[in-house]
Amino acid sequence: MTIRYPNGKKYVPAQRSARVNKKNLSFSNRGKTLEDELNETNEYYLSNNEAVIHKKPVPIQIVHVKYPARSAAVITEAYFRSPSTTDYNGVWKGKYIDFEAKETKNTTSFPLQNIHDHQVEHMKKVTEQAGIAFLLVKFTVLDRYFIIPYEYFEKKWERMIAGGRKSITLSEMEEISIEIKAGFNPRLDYLAALDSFLKPAFEETIERQENL
Amino acid sequence: MTIRYPNGKKYVPAQRSARVNKKNLSFSNRGKTLEDELNETNEYYLSNNEAVIHKKPVPIQIVHVKYPARSAAVITEAYFRSPSTTDYNGVWKGKYIDFEAKETKNTTSFPLQNIHDHQVEHMKKVTEQAGIAFLLVKFTVLDRYFIIPYEYFEKKWERMIAGGRKSITLSEMEEISIEIKAGFNPRLDYLAALDSFLKPAFEETIERQENL
Repeated sequence: MTIRYPNGKKYVPAQRSARVNKKNLSFSNRGKTLEDELNETNEYYLSNNEAVIHKKPVPIQIVHVKYPARSAAVITEAYFRSPSTTDYNGVWKGKYIDFEAKETKNTTSFPLQNIHDHQVEHMKKVTEQAGIAFLLVKFTVLDRYFIIPYEYFEKKWERMIAGGRKSITLSEMEEISIEIKAGFNPRLDYLAALDSFLKPAFEETIERQENL
Repeated sequence: MTIRYPNGKKYVPAQRSARVNKKNLSFSNRGKTLEDELNETNEYYLSNNEAVIHKKPVPIQIVHVKYPARSAAVITEAYFRSPSTTDYNGVWKGKYIDFEAKETKNTTSFPLQNIHDHQVEHMKKVTEQAGIAFLLVKFTVLDRYFIIPYEYFEKKWERMIAGGRKSITLSEMEEISIEIKAGFNPRLDYLAALDSFLKPAFEETIERQENL
């Protein structure tokens, strides 16, 4: 029995160089994980002075460390902890950006069990502080990407809490989010999407900022 | 020979409960680490809806993970990586906050070797994106705390690069930073300091935000 912990996925170390992976040489780049795509995008933003957005390291509880002579310290016992925040945050044109990125193999809906309670709580708090919080969801089989502003996502989350459905259907997704297309460089231009399409979604947030 | 890696400090796991540590029961709280003090402060800000600021997890390169039957995954080989950003970031009244916190046992100056190149580069990029970046330095022996806006710190860093002194003297520190006092709750009210005293320091940053 393999225990998948804490996010239901087996840990797979990041590839040292995505460039040498044959799959990634294909035009569609379908083999790339969402994390790879976002890392590339964030590197592009950083080197073009468009934004400073980083993925947070995976939270680890370190239990034992060895300090061998003449070589680097080795962690010999540690455990994965549940994240208490989202994975990505940073600054873009003076605005605080905060999001969680999730992939699903599902083709008809996005299962909400992919998101932790405390991550939702975190996005709510960020929104209250006039930060821009959203979810970025990739339907890997469909090769489709959606950005859902937190304030829209919250309604579906509350529906689940109230006993309703435990997922967001694809057609609901099309309604409450902005679909973005993967491109070459930047790979996933999510900031452009925020800039041009999501202004109405963040109107309340912007108003809140003015009143703080 | 003990290798101290990568920040020159031996890894010491965080105490599970600071409250049971006798040292911390003293009035002065001198036994607390700066990290403990900032965690307490950030928890205070969070629960009072004043800001959402978290410490980032320590970056780790995971090499080997075991998945024992019926229990949690165990990381059995991993290494510390150098951080590519600062330790703390978050949002406060719509503003992006980003800082590095450092302790020194030195009593006359703050050694710049405590800061990594890429952390300075990161703070520079944050400042360019109209985020608020600063250094929070604790002189543990003196029990004194200073907040240095990045734009002031940068001048001392550049002096070092140009071949000048490798530290900021205490009297320079008093000039270019705001001293804050440790209190009860919040323990280290650094946002209040930013709010009331540092406006002139961030004037350029605010202007930059308006022009972005």
